[in-house]
Order: sequence, then C-alpha cells, then structure tokens
Amino acid sequence: MRVSGALEGWNDGAARRAIVEFVERTVSDAVPVEERVAGFDNDGTLWCEKPMPIQLDFILRRLVEMAEAKPDLRDRQPWKAAYERDYGWLGALMAEHYAGDDSNVKILAAGILAAYEGISVEDFEAKSDAFLRTVQHPTLGRGYLECAYAPMVELLGYLEANGFSNYIASGGGRDFMRPISREVYGIPRERVIGSASALEYTSGDRGGTITHKAEADYLDDGPQKPIRIWSRTGRRPLLAAGNSNGDIAMLEFTHHQDKPFRPLLILHDDGEREFDYTSGAEQALEQAGTNGWTVVSMKNDWATVF
Amino acid sequence: MRVSGALEGWNDGAARRAIVEFVERTVSDAVPVEERVAGFDNDGTLWCEKPMPIQLDFILRRLVEMAEAKPDLRDRQPWKAAYERDYGWLGALMAEHYAGDDSNVKILAAGILAAYEGISVEDFEAKSDAFLRTVQHPTLGRGYLECAYAPMVELLGYLEANGFSNYIASGGGRDFMRPISREVYGIPRERVIGSASALEYTSGDRGGTITHKAEADYLDDGPQKPIRIWSRTGRRPLLAAGNSNGDIAMLEFTHHQDKPFRPLLILHDDGEREFDYTSGAEQALEQAGTNGWTVVSMKNDWATVF
Repeated sequence: MRVSGALEGWNDGAARRAIVEFVERTVSDAVPVEERVAGFDNDGTLWCEKPMPIQLDFILRRLVEMAEAKPDLRDRQPWKAAYERDYGWLGALMAEHYAGDDSNVKILAAGILAAYEGISVEDFEAKSDAFLRTVQHPTLGRGYLECAYAPMVELLGYLEANGFSNYIASGGGRDFMRPISREVYGIPRERVIGSASALEYTSGDRGGTITHKAEADYLDDGPQKPIRIWSRTGRRPLLAAGNSNGDIAMLEFTHHQDKPFRPLLILHDDGEREFDYTSGAEQALEQAGTNGWTVVSMKNDWATVF
Repeated sequence: MRVSGALEGWNDGAARRAIVEFVERTVSDAVPVEERVAGFDNDGTLWCEKPMPIQLDFILRRLVEMAEAKPDLRDRQPWKAAYERDYGWLGALMAEHYAGDDSNVKILAAGILAAYEGISVEDFEAKSDAFLRTVQHPTLGRGYLECAYAPMVELLGYLEANGFSNYIASGGGRDFMRPISREVYGIPRERVIGSASALEYTSGDRGGTITHKAEADYLDDGPQKPIRIWSRTGRRPLLAAGNSNGDIAMLEFTHHQDKPFRPLLILHDDGEREFDYTSGAEQALEQAGTNGWTVVSMKNDWATVF
C-alpha cells in the first residue's frame, strides 16, 4: 500500500512532515479503513472566522430583518445591536465571554434561536445556501465560499485519498454548513456535525415537516465535540484539527494507545494574508506545547492561504 | 443503468413487486445516489422482538447482576421483577403502555438508565458484543445474531447494490447495535441511529473517556425518528421500513412530491415460523391502509424468515 496525493499548498516543515508521517504510518500499519476517521472544526480551521464567524453575519442580517418588521424589537438586544450595526456590543460580548461572563452571550443565543423559530429545515437550508453563495467577506475581497483555506481543503483530499472519512465537528450550525459542505470541502452532508437547534416534527399527509424550535438541541463545543463525534461515528478519530480552546477536548480525544494519531492546532499568525490572533486559543496553545500536538503556523507552514 | 440484485427470499406478490418497482424507478429516474437514503426500524423489522426485545434481555441480566451485588435493590422495581424473573410485571407494563399509562415504563426506564451509569462507551460496546454473540433466543432455538430476518437482510443488500445508503433508525439503543450492525446487516456503525444515553466526557492525558450518564439523550421513537434521521443524514429518506406505531412518523416522512418513495410496514402474521401479533401496530396498520403503504406479510411474502 502506498500513500496517495500530495500537499503542495504546504511548505516543507515540521507540520507538513508530521501529517505525512501520520498518514504513512496509518497506511503502512494497515489501520482498517473504517477506523480512519478525522474530525475538523470549521470556523478558523477550515475557513475564516474573522472579523466575525460567517454564520454570525447570516444571523445578524436575519435579526435586522426582524427588527425592520417589528419596530419594538429595535430596543431589545440582540436586535438593537444588529439593527444599529453596533459591532461594539458584539465585540464586548466576545471579550466578556473569554473573561468568563456569559450573560450577554446568553442574550445573543436567545436571539439566534428565536431568529429561525418555526422555519422548516428545507427553507432554512435554502436561506443558508443563498447567503453563502452571494455574500462577500467584509474585508478579504472574496465571497464567503472562497474563504475556505486551500491547504486544509488539500489536506481533506489527501486524507480521503488515503482511506479516511472526514467529518466536520463545528461549534457552528450543522444545518447551516450542510448545503455547501460537499462543494467546498468534499464532505457529504451526513458527515457534518455541528451545533443544532431542537427540531419538531409535525405530521402531515404530504410527508410531515421538520421545523426549528427556539431552543438548542446541543452546542457542539468543548467536551461536546468528542461526544458528538462518538455519537455520530462510534469511533475515536485518528486525526483532529482545531484552532481554539473549544477544540481541546476533540484534539485530546484522538489519543490512541496502539494506533497512529495526530492532533493539529491551526495558529492564526498571518496578519498579511489572513488575520493574526490567539485570543480564545490560549489554553489550546499551551496544551499543544505540553502534549506534543502539531501547531500549524498559517504564516510559515502554508504556501498559500486561499 | 440497470437494477442489480434479486430478492429470492421474497415470494412473488404485491410487496415484492412494490419494492422492485420502487427501486427500478429510482434507478431509471436517475435519482442522485446521495439522495438514496433508506431508514429501517430494528426490533420487529430487521430482527425478532418477541417474546421480548433482545436488548431488554441484555438489560434484565444486568439488573439481576446489580440485585445480586446489592440486596436492597431486590425490593425495588425494576430490579425486583428482573431478580424474581417476574415477566408478569414486564408484560403488564407493555399492556399499560399501549393503554396510555407509562408510570411503570418510567420506572423501568430509570432502571435501564441506572444499569449502565458510568460505564465507558468502549466497555459498554464490549458487553453488548459479548452478549449478542453468546446468548440464545429463548424459544427459536437460535442465537440472537441469527434472529435477523433473511428477506430483510437481502433487501438491505438489494438497496445497497442499487446505490442506497441504509440506516438503522431504531427505538433500541444505538450503542447496543453498533458492534454487530455491519456483520449482521452490512450497515456500518456510523449509519446506526437509535436511542442513546446522555454521555459525559472526562478529560485525560491518555485520550479522555466518554461514559454513560443515568439519563437519556433521546428516545428514538415516534416523531423523533424522522428528526433523528434528518439530524444524522440531512435527507428525507426514500424508503423506510417499520412494524409498529412508533414507526408511523418515519414512514410518513418518506413522502416525496417529485421522487419515488416507498414506506414498508412489516406485519407479524406468521405464528409458525416467528410470532403472530399486531399489538402496538394497530394505528400503523390503519395508516398503511389509508395511505397506500406496502404491508409486508411475513407469512405470505417471505419464502423464508431466518
């Protein structure tokens, strides 16, 4: 058995070598194909998450729509911030979150869940699909669908060519990513794991309808990531990639006693080609150092970003 | 494109013809392969569920173990019934359930959830695997793993040969079925949907551990079946098969405006080769009549059962 594919978008260096070595060992050890499972965070790992997560832009536009239709919402958060384009409120909220204060995060979450209450899963998907195909990233001069990182897309292909099944395990919305996951990442919709609204089934003689409820089913972040990967696949992944503290548990979960495994942590250190930040990744970087996880420097390890 | 495979375990009749017609139309209409999703209930649809669901036997043995270890449990339900082999209590409970009284069902459910509290997912799987491979069905004179219905296994293969992805969507436990699903049904573990305990992740430098909590994540029955199929696949299945009222929503959910679809309801009418009962399937049979679902008579439509 030979290793297939190349990683041309990656510079020669420790990260690229660690990945190739891992895949070569998986192939030469003849790890059964069904055990070759890999899990990828999405925002900040497979595509850009700055200046704000792409899905947040999608939701804010919906909150504006709601505030336009119902003026009394304009005085209530999060509609007020969305309607007034008050990015200060949103920015402060993230800083508060990292400082351990989630009171405004909860207000935003309630707004997010209310934003699509009652929509059918098919209509939600059509909205997400239309948004992702038409909206431009605010600063990078490219459409959102072109904000996927080329070296990561190449890595997905390289893994797949070597028998891996790639899964997205995102804190973002599962049903938000599904309409574009195959086109952008080569990952079919049944392999998209992500946060989900609780759903409701309404019987009907033309097939019944599934709609979004204004509550979360689960938030696929932190310890929920390994739980949701297990629930979906029944496997402990051999490779996982993330970029933030919310990915620590998933990266740790790749550890195997008797098989090759590889946790990857993407470091956003390329302010020229993308963004330069470690906020929200401090503990992940510390654990990477302690546990020998592979840190991927966007600046040094990637020949190209997009 | 030609239809592949045969259904030799099926007698020529309306059920077999409806299945073949459906598959032929799916192929001749060139329905994209990724949309060819089929969902199957397990207990009573793919394998035997009488005199009690196979997993209930597994759980009762665990309750007996617990009562042996802790004598004070012997006075409490459901341990008391398990310890005393009091099948009357269990039988009455099912009758109460169908009559709309779930008070004892809740007592049983609490016992079931407590039975494996704290066990790791790997250990749980090893126990389920060992049980299923060694225990005999109480009356059929065959091991539990030989209790799968041969015509249904053949149908799974026929669908797969024609581009379908088969999923199990069972009211029974997802993690109970996973270790044997590929061997028995050709269905890989990531396509097993079923009821699940809530899980907990505990961090650890050797990879972290996922353990069962004494609470349900969800019960995959009734309206949860279409919801969980959607959550897992992002698709409305084209074919679904069930045998009880708990499958009505899933069967209904197959309805498509513009594509072939086929709901199948297995009728247990073969007291000689299997069991003869319609209890718990009354509304499903009624809906099958009203909505043109295909009723599969085990007695008349199957040349063989096992």
